[in-house]
Amino acid sequence: MKTYFECIPCLIRQTFEAARLTTDDKAIHEQVIRKILRAASEMNLRESPPFMAQRIHRLIRQMTGDNDPYRDIKDRFNHFALELYPELKERVERSRTPLDTAIRLAIAGNIIDSGVNLHINETLVHNSIEHALTSPLAGDPEQFRKAVSKANDILYLADNAGEIVFDRLLIEQMPSEKITLVVKGSPVINDACLADAQATGIADLVEVIDNGSDAPGTILDECSEEFKRRFENADLIIAKGQGNYETLSDVKKDIFFVLKAKCPVIAHHIGCEVGSLVFLGSARGKDYGGKKI
Amino acid sequence: MKTYFECIPCLIRQTFEAARLTTDDKAIHEQVIRKILRAASEMNLRESPPFMAQRIHRLIRQMTGDNDPYRDIKDRFNHFALELYPELKERVERSRTPLDTAIRLAIAGNIIDSGVNLHINETLVHNSIEHALTSPLAGDPEQFRKAVSKANDILYLADNAGEIVFDRLLIEQMPSEKITLVVKGSPVINDACLADAQATGIADLVEVIDNGSDAPGTILDECSEEFKRRFENADLIIAKGQGNYETLSDVKKDIFFVLKAKCPVIAHHIGCEVGSLVFLGSARGKDYGGKKI
Repeated sequence: MKTYFECIPCLIRQTFEAARLTTDDKAIHEQVIRKILRAASEMNLRESPPFMAQRIHRLIRQMTGDNDPYRDIKDRFNHFALELYPELKERVERSRTPLDTAIRLAIAGNIIDSGVNLHINETLVHNSIEHALTSPLAGDPEQFRKAVSKANDILYLADNAGEIVFDRLLIEQMPSEKITLVVKGSPVINDACLADAQATGIADLVEVIDNGSDAPGTILDECSEEFKRRFENADLIIAKGQGNYETLSDVKKDIFFVLKAKCPVIAHHIGCEVGSLVFLGSARGKDYGGKKI
Repeated sequence: MKTYFECIPCLIRQTFEAARLTTDDKAIHEQVIRKILRAASEMNLRESPPFMAQRIHRLIRQMTGDNDPYRDIKDRFNHFALELYPELKERVERSRTPLDTAIRLAIAGNIIDSGVNLHINETLVHNSIEHALTSPLAGDPEQFRKAVSKANDILYLADNAGEIVFDRLLIEQMPSEKITLVVKGSPVINDACLADAQATGIADLVEVIDNGSDAPGTILDECSEEFKRRFENADLIIAKGQGNYETLSDVKKDIFFVLKAKCPVIAHHIGCEVGSLVFLGSARGKDYGGKKI
């Protein structure tokens, strides 16, 4: 997906939010925002929004010397999600359609996205769970079940810290030996890294690798050779969240996109309403029901 | 009021919205947005947001050759407000507190602000009217009545086309010979100009002058010498809308600010919630209950 004009205000907002997280020094905030505005004036709009976001967050880390501005937020939501986990697990187990329930809960956890909303809190997560369990799901769990059954090597591209505990519920519905969870190579926004996979215990359940990149999505050209090889060889990709959708929607590969459509640009690109539960198989690059704006 | 970081995404959004109004040529849209991003990277944040908005909308008019991109929107809301006028006038006349009702309706009309929301429609105006008639008013109509009674020369700084019909209801509660309505010198966003004062008939009720400027607010340094003299000599200023608040909140003069707080930055600056009905006297530069962020 390319970058739309509507993405630019959102990227600018992320800039000063991240700058304020790292330091109280207003002179640095202003330097950062001026530098990003200038960079934005020269950006390649054919690249996806996470391409620009990667550069923004790199610059903020460089200018402030803070390598992981969202660390506290990540810890807070890992902890909160682990507290919720037993109850959510019980909901899946009690469900007459456990795969469907697990998919819904994995999507509910996608609300924990500090790029879209820095002020995400526990109440909003609870609301997201109830919404996900009662709203229409744009996608077909049976098609997914068949795809998982046929595949031997499945990459589950994680999105955010905290959210990966919700992903665990979905992963537990699949044969764990087929699954490799992929996290980011180094910190960007509140995206999950190896430390989060370890802290939440998911690393004890499935193999976890990182993609070698600090983009808030999966920009294949920016990933490690090892990850690219794994991606190339995988039978099925489960791509979680908006960043992975934005960076992989044009890649010809069997991909299931699993996300909550939180912004109007992505909702319009997919062809759904903001807030929708999205669970769409790309069917090896064929159209997956989405329309392009 | 200075420009806050939070204003920048909003100004960028206005940029592509206005560019799209003027032309379907995507190359021009992109040129405009790149130029504005570069200008924003160098902007003086001590100036008010309308200072930057003035430059943005000037550039768009220059680059597209369209001198009045919001003309259709202005015509539409002039027409719509004139249709509503008889019913609103009756509401004021039937009211036990006609001044209070007229103030509320004048504030309701401030929803017609294409800078804040390009997609304002008739339903939202109706909702704004009902909200204004039933919600708390942050300000004291009695203090205003006394100030009007003492003053001989009152400038009413208008905000938007369509909205000026709502202003008429408030102006009708004051001695018309004391009032001069001030419109913008040339088109910017959907701000009212002389053509709008004429089209809506308000020019038949009170003297109408323009301020000689194309800023979406009242930047005194940018106004005509004649307007500056009138401003200096006036006993009382009634400043309508966010743009006039942003540009005059630090000016030492007897000013009543009459507006709907539609954005979080202004609401926080005033010390109220978004959506509040604001009717505040500045008491010649003294603090008027607002807090500064």
